[in-house]
Formats: sequence, C-alpha cells, structure tokens
Amino acid sequence: MSVHGAVQRGSSVVVKKVGIRDVAAAAGVSTTTVSHALNGLGSMTAETRQRVRRVSQELDYRPNRMASGLRRERSHTVGFVGDTVATTPFAVEMLRGAQDAAVASAYSMVLASSGADPEVEAREMGLLRSFPVDGLIVGRMFHQYIDLDVSALGMPTVVVNARARDDDLPALVPDEPQIGKDATRELLDAGHRAVAHLTITTPGCARDWRMAAYRDTVAGMAREQIVYAREATTESAREAALPLLRAADRPTAVFCFNDQMAMGVYQAAHRLGLRIPEDLSVIGVDDLQIVAAALDPALTTVALPHYEMGRRAIHMVLALIEGNGSTGATTMMECPVVRRGSIATAPY
Amino acid sequence: MSVHGAVQRGSSVVVKKVGIRDVAAAAGVSTTTVSHALNGLGSMTAETRQRVRRVSQELDYRPNRMASGLRRERSHTVGFVGDTVATTPFAVEMLRGAQDAAVASAYSMVLASSGADPEVEAREMGLLRSFPVDGLIVGRMFHQYIDLDVSALGMPTVVVNARARDDDLPALVPDEPQIGKDATRELLDAGHRAVAHLTITTPGCARDWRMAAYRDTVAGMAREQIVYAREATTESAREAALPLLRAADRPTAVFCFNDQMAMGVYQAAHRLGLRIPEDLSVIGVDDLQIVAAALDPALTTVALPHYEMGRRAIHMVLALIEGNGSTGATTMMECPVVRRGSIATAPY
Repeated sequence: MSVHGAVQRGSSVVVKKVGIRDVAAAAGVSTTTVSHALNGLGSMTAETRQRVRRVSQELDYRPNRMASGLRRERSHTVGFVGDTVATTPFAVEMLRGAQDAAVASAYSMVLASSGADPEVEAREMGLLRSFPVDGLIVGRMFHQYIDLDVSALGMPTVVVNARARDDDLPALVPDEPQIGKDATRELLDAGHRAVAHLTITTPGCARDWRMAAYRDTVAGMAREQIVYAREATTESAREAALPLLRAADRPTAVFCFNDQMAMGVYQAAHRLGLRIPEDLSVIGVDDLQIVAAALDPALTTVALPHYEMGRRAIHMVLALIEGNGSTGATTMMECPVVRRGSIATAPY
Repeated sequence: MSVHGAVQRGSSVVVKKVGIRDVAAAAGVSTTTVSHALNGLGSMTAETRQRVRRVSQELDYRPNRMASGLRRERSHTVGFVGDTVATTPFAVEMLRGAQDAAVASAYSMVLASSGADPEVEAREMGLLRSFPVDGLIVGRMFHQYIDLDVSALGMPTVVVNARARDDDLPALVPDEPQIGKDATRELLDAGHRAVAHLTITTPGCARDWRMAAYRDTVAGMAREQIVYAREATTESAREAALPLLRAADRPTAVFCFNDQMAMGVYQAAHRLGLRIPEDLSVIGVDDLQIVAAALDPALTTVALPHYEMGRRAIHMVLALIEGNGSTGATTMMECPVVRRGSIATAPY
C-alpha cells in the first residue's frame, strides 16, 4: 500500500467533518496555536499543547492540507530527516546523492538532523510538515530497524539505510548478506584458507547479517575464526588484532567489519613486522575515502552505496509525490567490491 | 551596523508604499506567483519569473514580513546554509555544535546544502526565506572570503568558517596565525631545530596565514624548509614526504597543513624505517577524530574548533534575532593544541 495513497484515501472522508476553527473553538485557543501545538512549534505551556492535541484527537481533526483529495500546490521541496546522518562522516554521501538528484529534478532539499534524539526528531518532523514540503526522506547512519507512525507522517515518505519494522514504508538498505559473502569470497578466491572475521560485540543488522554470510561462505572452504572488538574504531580493532596476529596459527587474511577497523589491523601488522598484503591480506567495508584510499597499501573494500541510496531515495519519493511510486517494500542495494592493493595470493 | 537593525530600519519606510497585491496586479499574475518568483520556488517560465522580479524592483516592493517594524511572530527556527559543509566529513562538527545549541535554546535548525554551486545556494536561501525561519547561518567547509548581498539576506545572518569581504557580517573563523605559531612552537619547545612545514600548492586563508606564522616563528630559531604537496590528501603528502625524509639533512620534525597529510608523513616514515616519534616528530591541524585519534601513535594536532564555531554561531544569530546581537565583525576563534603521542624530544 503506498503511503501517499493511504493518506489521501484514509482521510478524505474525515475532512468534511471538522476544520482547524472547530478545534480552536473547542480548545479555547487561536487557530495559530492549534497549528503550532500539532506541529510541535511555538511557545505555549505543555498543558495547552496537550489540550489542543486531545481535542484534536477527540474531534478526529486532520490538517486540511494533508486530507484534501485535491492535489495541493507543490513546493518542489523534499525534507530529509536524519539521526546523525547529517553530522557524521560516514553517511554524508547519502545527503550528497539526495542533494544532486533533487537539484537535477528541480527540487530543493531541506535537512533536519535530530542527533539521534527521538523527541528532537519528532519536533523536526513536525517542523518540516509545517513547511511547504512535498515529501520526506528519513535516513539513518547505521542500518537498523525503525518505528515510524506511517499515518502520522502525512506525506510521501521513503526510509534510507533503515527499514520499517512492519515493512509498511518503502526502504533502501545495503544488501548485508551479499557484503559478507562477497568480502569472504574475495579472500577465498585468492587462495586463503585461514580467513578470520574481525567484527564488533554489539548486535545489529549490519553485524549480524555480514557475520552469518561469512559463516555460510567459509563453511567447508576455510577455517572459521571470529574475533570481536569492543567498538567499530581503529583503536579497538588494533587492540583485538594484536593477539590474533601474534598467534602461531594466525590467519593469512582478515575480513573487517569496516574500513576504520581495517586501519587498526594494518597498525597491528606493522607493529608485528607483518607486511600487507605479502604476509596478511585485508578487506574492509564502507569505502570511506579518507581511510580506504589513504591507507598504504590502499584498502580493498566493499563499498556501501550511500550516494546511490540518497539518489534513489529522491527518485522514489518524487514518484510517490507524483502518485506513481512503488508500494511499501524494502529494496536491497548491491554493494560493489572496490579492488585496491590489500589482497595478495595466500602465502602458504 | 547590525544586520537585523539594518533590515528593520532600511525598509520600514518603504513598506507602506506597495504590497504583494500591487506587484501581482502590475505583473498580471497571482500573489502566490509573486511570492514563488521572488523566493525562487514553484514552476513558471523564466520570462514570468523575470517579469515579476522586474516589476517588484520597479515598485521597490519588499516582502511585508521582513519590512514590518513590528516584531513578527517567531518560528523559533534557524536556517543553516552550507556549501559542502553538510556533506563533508571535516566540518560536520560545525553542524553538531549548531544543532546542540539550537536545541538547548528551544530552537529548531533546518539545513540547506548547496554543494558549492552559487545558483543552488541562492535558490536554497530563497527557500529558507520563504519558510518561517528567524535567522540564517552561512557556513563554509574551508576558511575563505565570501561575497554575500547583506541587504538581500533580509534577516539576521552569521557567517562561519568564512568572512564577508567587507566585514559587514558577523563572522567566526579559526585564528590561522595562532595555529601556525602554536604548531611550530610545539616542535621548537621539544628542541627541534630542523622543522619543516608540509603544506599545499593552492593559496587560501588557511594555507597562507599558517605558513606566514610558521616563517615568523622559526625565524632565528630553526632552519626554514617548506615542502608542497599537490593536494591536502594523505596520498599527496606521502609522495611529497618521501624525498624530504630520504634526504641526508632530513628534518627531525614536520608541521603538516592538516591531519590527513600527517597520515601521509607517517606512511612515508614507515616505508623508510623511521619511527614516530623517536626519529621524527609530527604535528597536524584539524583534530579529525577518525585520523588523529586513530593513528599509531595518536597524532598531536591543533584542533579546529568546528563544534564551538557552530555553537557560537547559534548564540550570535539568536542574539541578533532578539535585537541585541553584536555588530558586523570577524571573531577569531582560539584553536587548542591537542597533545597525543607524535612529538618527542629532538634526537640530535
């Protein structure tokens, strides 16, 4: 079921019953206060805000703009709501892709970054709804499940690098099982039979599915060895890699959860006098330029298609705005292997 | 002269003369079309847009909201317009600082990222003006001069990591001479007398002022040696550092233009069998976490106060909104040395 369709169908019956003036009169406030209260804006007591919301629910009021069966005037603007997407180095490519696609379609994009605080995010989304925004993209820094009240969104919405728990919103996510399989295969194909996986202790979509695919892919082909770092950082990875590489039966290749952790493996190898790729092959995930391309030798890695996800999210939300978008479903994005200099044929 | 004051004073005389209806009638279009044309929104022919703008100028029309001598209703929202600030890993801390300060003051922040395209930026700014935004922050990824039409901004505006050419807007920039002086002193104080500066070929505020301060600081204290990399990247720095460190009279310490270039110096040293910091001391600029904290040994660097600049920009723009902001002037932000493990006493 398309979000856009749902909103239009679900509320076109209701709108004739009650308007903003009815809510204002019943709550004993101005229409401006009603609008601000429902959109999380303006200065008012919590009591007033709650009263307006209660009255609004009792009367089953829906803002006219959303409920109108007629096509409302377009602002040619899309809102992008991120958790820490807009303020972290990893996922900013997503914004670049969305920005470029929006500009190419003569749309503008405004961003609201919530800093991962659900209350702030709810407020930002209310704010964007009060603006003349035609559609929304909700992005996440890490691939994860999110809970969104689809009916409350009130406009065409696409989720990026995350998926709605009930699959009731169109979503774009990296194909994590493919990442785990292709990274492991890259090492097996170079002849490695002692292939370790360096990952993190905290469960999550990306960690769990990459690890499961690693297990499936090494099964019957190579020794399975999983090592955990406390965090997905260079420092934690270096610490976890030192005992791994000091061991007599050390692996000849390591599949790292991300590029920053691969940098930690480089450093551990350097400390122990192991050369990359002659003595140890390494593959990462992300293709974070300032790490993957900068390492010496440059890192072979599986690229997360952040730019492409942002670009496609804009195309999907514009299609929904035009009324011909896809129905709510999760699309797995292919993640290409970027070959550089960190994998060599197995030394023995 | 404060921007806010200028806007209020400059246009309060004009507003009684002509309204949006007068412009619409004279141009033969609807008031909505006038609003969209002036704010760069909506779909219309270029001819219509130009006609509306021409008529609007002929009639000396100013949107009523801006021109009103009365305090208009606040939206408690600030717009942040960046070039590539929102889509690069380096300056995102600026957004985090602004975001946190906005939330702490019960303000929301919306971002528009122009991707460094002046036409897109003009459009985004028009868009934010058409939204209920109380003030603007204009940010830049690299410290630079920018040209902004102050009167066209039409609302309280603060510039971050950039300065207006005529110093007619409040601006926050890193204290580049202090960076160059403190980085060089850090190496001189450890006893180094062969201190090279690895910088870039392209001129700019940051490069020029850091280099000038390096020259002034080594003068009479140590040998001056400036080496240029093609770009401010790890790869370019590695390439430039190899001949520098191979030379018989190689420096014992290097002051690098940024942290990524310091990473390239680490790699060149590694290739040549030089240990950091025992054989070579290194200092960077930026304090980019995923590089500076991740390097082995961790990098001593001069931090660019991106977070603090974002935070202070919000405070400054909120003060302007309240009518008690500072006058247009450039504030130099202090940049602290972050001591980690890459500087040792001079080996000889």
